[in-house]
Amino acid sequence: YTISSRISWISDIIVVVSPENIETMKTIIEKYGHKRVTVVKGGITRHRSIFNGLKVFAEREFSSYLLQKPEVVVIHDAVRPFVEEDILLEVVMAAKEHGAAGAIRPLVSTVIASSADGCLDHSLERARYRASEMPQAFLFDVIYQAYQQCTDYDLDYGTECLHLALKYSNVKAKLIEGTADLWKVTYKRDLYAAESIIKDNLSQQICVITDVKEGAVQAGFLLHESLKSQIKVEVVSISLCKNDTHLQNMIAEGCYNFIYIHDKQSAFQETQLLVDMLEKSNITLSYPVMLISVHLSSSENISFSIGTEELTSIKKFAREVKKKNIWVYGLLL
Amino acid sequence: YTISSRISWISDIIVVVSPENIETMKTIIEKYGHKRVTVVKGGITRHRSIFNGLKVFAEREFSSYLLQKPEVVVIHDAVRPFVEEDILLEVVMAAKEHGAAGAIRPLVSTVIASSADGCLDHSLERARYRASEMPQAFLFDVIYQAYQQCTDYDLDYGTECLHLALKYSNVKAKLIEGTADLWKVTYKRDLYAAESIIKDNLSQQICVITDVKEGAVQAGFLLHESLKSQIKVEVVSISLCKNDTHLQNMIAEGCYNFIYIHDKQSAFQETQLLVDMLEKSNITLSYPVMLISVHLSSSENISFSIGTEELTSIKKFAREVKKKNIWVYGLLL
Repeated sequence: YTISSRISWISDIIVVVSPENIETMKTIIEKYGHKRVTVVKGGITRHRSIFNGLKVFAEREFSSYLLQKPEVVVIHDAVRPFVEEDILLEVVMAAKEHGAAGAIRPLVSTVIASSADGCLDHSLERARYRASEMPQAFLFDVIYQAYQQCTDYDLDYGTECLHLALKYSNVKAKLIEGTADLWKVTYKRDLYAAESIIKDNLSQQICVITDVKEGAVQAGFLLHESLKSQIKVEVVSISLCKNDTHLQNMIAEGCYNFIYIHDKQSAFQETQLLVDMLEKSNITLSYPVMLISVHLSSSENISFSIGTEELTSIKKFAREVKKKNIWVYGLLL
Repeated sequence: YTISSRISWISDIIVVVSPENIETMKTIIEKYGHKRVTVVKGGITRHRSIFNGLKVFAEREFSSYLLQKPEVVVIHDAVRPFVEEDILLEVVMAAKEHGAAGAIRPLVSTVIASSADGCLDHSLERARYRASEMPQAFLFDVIYQAYQQCTDYDLDYGTECLHLALKYSNVKAKLIEGTADLWKVTYKRDLYAAESIIKDNLSQQICVITDVKEGAVQAGFLLHESLKSQIKVEVVSISLCKNDTHLQNMIAEGCYNFIYIHDKQSAFQETQLLVDMLEKSNITLSYPVMLISVHLSSSENISFSIGTEELTSIKKFAREVKKKNIWVYGLLL
């Protein structure tokens, strides 16, 4: 669902959804501000759903307006959320040349055929076969004509679009080696695997913001030194957070981790300004942003019993902004 | 590697390891006290490694002593750590009857064959094929004779033991539907998926231990009420932790989560007794044990500034036992 904002050369996105989930899908599209998206009712099988999606470009009955017929159409599964622009471009270019193209992966297990009595009939030589994955791309006419000629048996029991293009449009799809991240999120464990990939992506870089005082700048420098071997670190020193271009760029580039180091007696307002900035950037729509506010205390006599009133208001503030997907932590050093 | 302790009907376990990892493997076997395990040097391909493992039962050159030849041998991959006794028993019983048997799973993706120019040659009808997984079991003579007749091509490029049993011993393996957890831990993301399954297993039950005073017993009862819909909870009330049979049973059954509720002024010694008991049980060899010590404070005047000395010694204690895989947390209510 973030494809439309990321990839400008995709002109329309058709999301095919089972009837009972159409309202949920429309809510999601509105919430995240996705553009160029049309929601279409799915069929009872995979092929019937894909066919419904394609009809939006060709038959008025399926849409209040007819979308402009594309030269190339990409077919993708929602259960493969980590598709990258590279592979999309590759299958599209190959489809322009060959009429059809699809991502493949090496087989992880040997594939076997069983006989009627549940015993081994024969096994396939693993090196000669590949797993057919998504995305796949087609010249629109190639795949649409194939679907129009399909039998009911194809529509009910088939699973492979490349097969339809071969059988009905006589097009041999170009096969493109895909990345491991194209796997199908299928089992409960795959949700954890997907989560780990997202966390990995979010942990690629961190932005250290310091105020201009010497202690804070020095702490920022030391933090940079100790983190730089593990993560991409940028240090920004600013006197007022509000309109710093460097910081704005970090946010725009997709940095989700911020450490704000200061030695002011109360930097609460500054933290609030930072939070406002993050909120306005809209990056919190997709993923949570982490902000650690580090208060450097130089005076010896500050005890652990920090003013209860201040503590309570910071905690309350953190609780509030967590609803906006910004996780604020405070650290007293 | 925990199979030997879990499943008594397996008489010998041969672990085939690449030459450079043999010492590491021996260290692991010693550390975890695994019994009935023989380490064998692997070959340069899968089939050569398996063949080496089988030779231990038949050829003196591969072992200082010849292990007794088994009727049935199970072949399994270390990358499928979640194999259950059920499926092992099923493949063994089927192998006794049919000569060979193996676990299978439905295909997640369509399998296709590519032509020499990297284009689609044909696709397989997904419903007619299965992914061949592990464990597999064989009458020893069936698989050993098959390996003895193998060509070098088979040994270098083959991947499927069931195929060898069919080709050289004319045995059609019985195919057994396996569970989803038999998947091959292949990519980095699979490590996270595996971790999630282990955590899930460890979070199946919790043991609440209370002392016999009214406040603690009541807190234990309330905790049981609020947790029981999400997790299996057992509550044990004891005056001295040391030799409670009920508690010993909980540990023996594989409970890894303990909450100790007490209202004693200092229950530090009791916590130490609990930790001793957990340590002696050996369950900490495989997975970490969590112990939360909850101190119920009824007096109003205890401030957050709990005695620094006590706090320091508890923290030090927790740090020490963490090395023994026991994670102790303290909670003051």
